[in-house]
Amino acid sequence: MSNNNCLENLKTDIGDLVEITTKAEADKSSTTYKGNIMPCLKEDVIMIKMSSGYNAGIKKEKIEEIKLLSKGETPKHVKTDLEINKDKKLKNISIISTGGTVASRVDYKTGAVHPAFTADDLIMAVPELLTIANISGKAVMNILSENMLPTYWKEVAEHIEQEVKNGADGIVIAHGTDTMHYTASALQFMVKSNVPIILVGAQRSSDRPSSDAALNLIASTKFATEGLSGVYVLMHGENGDEYCYLHEGVKVRKLHSSRRDAFKSVNAQPVAKMNMLSKNKKTNEKDYKIEYLADERKLKQNIIDKNLNVQINTKLEERVALLKIYPGINSDILKYYADKGYKGIVLEGTGLGHAPETLFEGIKYAISKGLLVAMTTQTINGRVNMNVYSNGVELQKMGVISCEDMNAETALVKMMYLLANYEFKEAKDLMGKNIAGEITEFSVIDLN
Amino acid sequence: MSNNNCLENLKTDIGDLVEITTKAEADKSSTTYKGNIMPCLKEDVIMIKMSSGYNAGIKKEKIEEIKLLSKGETPKHVKTDLEINKDKKLKNISIISTGGTVASRVDYKTGAVHPAFTADDLIMAVPELLTIANISGKAVMNILSENMLPTYWKEVAEHIEQEVKNGADGIVIAHGTDTMHYTASALQFMVKSNVPIILVGAQRSSDRPSSDAALNLIASTKFATEGLSGVYVLMHGENGDEYCYLHEGVKVRKLHSSRRDAFKSVNAQPVAKMNMLSKNKKTNEKDYKIEYLADERKLKQNIIDKNLNVQINTKLEERVALLKIYPGINSDILKYYADKGYKGIVLEGTGLGHAPETLFEGIKYAISKGLLVAMTTQTINGRVNMNVYSNGVELQKMGVISCEDMNAETALVKMMYLLANYEFKEAKDLMGKNIAGEITEFSVIDLN
Repeated sequence: MSNNNCLENLKTDIGDLVEITTKAEADKSSTTYKGNIMPCLKEDVIMIKMSSGYNAGIKKEKIEEIKLLSKGETPKHVKTDLEINKDKKLKNISIISTGGTVASRVDYKTGAVHPAFTADDLIMAVPELLTIANISGKAVMNILSENMLPTYWKEVAEHIEQEVKNGADGIVIAHGTDTMHYTASALQFMVKSNVPIILVGAQRSSDRPSSDAALNLIASTKFATEGLSGVYVLMHGENGDEYCYLHEGVKVRKLHSSRRDAFKSVNAQPVAKMNMLSKNKKTNEKDYKIEYLADERKLKQNIIDKNLNVQINTKLEERVALLKIYPGINSDILKYYADKGYKGIVLEGTGLGHAPETLFEGIKYAISKGLLVAMTTQTINGRVNMNVYSNGVELQKMGVISCEDMNAETALVKMMYLLANYEFKEAKDLMGKNIAGEITEFSVIDLN
Repeated sequence: MSNNNCLENLKTDIGDLVEITTKAEADKSSTTYKGNIMPCLKEDVIMIKMSSGYNAGIKKEKIEEIKLLSKGETPKHVKTDLEINKDKKLKNISIISTGGTVASRVDYKTGAVHPAFTADDLIMAVPELLTIANISGKAVMNILSENMLPTYWKEVAEHIEQEVKNGADGIVIAHGTDTMHYTASALQFMVKSNVPIILVGAQRSSDRPSSDAALNLIASTKFATEGLSGVYVLMHGENGDEYCYLHEGVKVRKLHSSRRDAFKSVNAQPVAKMNMLSKNKKTNEKDYKIEYLADERKLKQNIIDKNLNVQINTKLEERVALLKIYPGINSDILKYYADKGYKGIVLEGTGLGHAPETLFEGIKYAISKGLLVAMTTQTINGRVNMNVYSNGVELQKMGVISCEDMNAETALVKMMYLLANYEFKEAKDLMGKNIAGEITEFSVIDLN
């Protein structure tokens, strides 16, 4: 992370405040960028963090001049003793930290990284949280979300159960964004809860004033006091700081590698919006206004027994594969999974849910070996419909289940859940039906 | 396709013109739909084709009444003898038909399907084509695009070469939409051509007045007379009939299972727009206006020797796999591909291009066995950047190549092409560099 190979032979170092002027080109006059030197991205690119909080990468060959404005600061370690008194008028919100960017500090002025940022640190970094609710923090793991495993989903579910049983009125889960939607789906199937469970991430580290972490944490904590049922994901709704969206956990997907509004509801609308209006431009103080986009009453309905606030079932069949289809894929890969003892396969087909004829033999083999095979689509948007073309009709005859408008990622997690908790026949039947909001039912659909 | 299990016990049949009234519900009064009964979609849904050309599916349990307005017609077979005289002022455009919806007729009045629709049939269905250019048609195959194989891409490339050598000033390829973007990428790598090669599809069959097939064919034929170089995809730009977009073949992706504007340029803008303005509302006559969104001169630059109009290289290494990463995936799958003799793997990682640590062993194994391993992202949008987090840095150290902002589908095809045509070291080096427009270079990037 504190890679500085791009800075070789330059009289500047990570953390320095500089002004970089680019060469004038035929079609463009020169431009000047001011900011702090960041760790190198590529050998031929200088990265700077501008005062707006945005990063820019400038190719070295395009640089005319680098002017040093001031040398970088040495890191300070902030330590605060925090005394938190419970306010009986406020709700009790538990922030469970699992790791990820929202729970990490990157100090670009020194190039140092502080990954072990606990929930208490989050509160120190975002003291406004204490005006919204009585906050208790719990760092249950500290992993980047690309390393999330089904077994960690179970652990998170168990911590949720414990926190709700200990009196939490709402749960906020700080999570890396890479696989946050997989975890959200897993929790939606595993945890039935009358209190809101809100996953929140950040695309930029939480110690930067311009980060999305603080606003996302504030917005998610506010939603956690709203008495919703079920599992949600909260992230920025656009690339600025104007509003956040609350998405259903089973309908959301990361759809950009770096933008702050990377998360989008797919085949669905966000259920609520948090407008973040500037109250005071100088202090960046905000007014937060919730606007429900879905039926607020339904979101707040108890989903389990009124006398019970939480109920978990963490059994998962992990021998389930997600397989994206492409021209040239052949049947051997399905035979491999079947022979290896896998119990189910979620296909990511083309178009309305199709697979090449060259894959039919493998699909039949897998089904004959007792695997559950279900179809989603790699178009991301739109519904699987295996009744329009002969290919889909054939696949259904073989026993392939249509996942309708369910995300492939959600379908994978759902199949893991169903195969562990139901007899095969029932699991197969439930795969194509809505059990937790993951499939939108239709009465009239427009195929065009 | 002529499935009619949803019509059992009803006094109506496929093709009948009916009026369906739905039951009034607590929150909705009854609605009436008028249209022709279509083949069944599901056992409990009645499908009708409305006069607008749109389909509606109505759940049987929601239906109050079905009123028969008139019985269905029997199919008519249109046969026309077409005499085409070449007009020397017009350019010569060759339409190569490979199959798919754009080249198929579905007669919903009778439930019959006519898949073997040749290029000549296309001209008969869309006679306006003859006012745009001297059209010659060639049906080279008749397959739904989910069944496209790398070997068919080669055949298409050979037909393109032949047509250009025979004097075609532009090529239109009628193609199914499911895998059209894979074929477009393959042709962009395999064919260097100074004449435009435009793939065109349709989301609804070409014999319906409301279909997108006719407009897409007209627009693609017009673009084929424009003297562009390279491979493009033309489809509707929105769900109505207002405009079409011309996309670069290597930057486009199907992003909806059923909408007419399913194709979107990813990490890029469409290069041109065809505005289809109504000239005469009664006859549906249109004015077609081209608007270039990218630099027109660059699009029209010769990409090969000025004296040569086409050059093909169809060698492909088909032992390349596309593998989508998900929580719980393990190293065995990579070992399987390596031991099976595969030569390369394109990973569809999470976020900025990450893979779980549990996959590292398999990645190292595959690389040690001589496979080329490259990274794309399942976020679809945004750039891979393996320098931001330690996970990406580790993967690069192992030898995994970043595919930058290249689509996973394009990366798969590119790897097949590179491994067949270059020494391993050079293929590896070229994988992460732009060779045919598939990677956008950057001078200043915004990571936020």
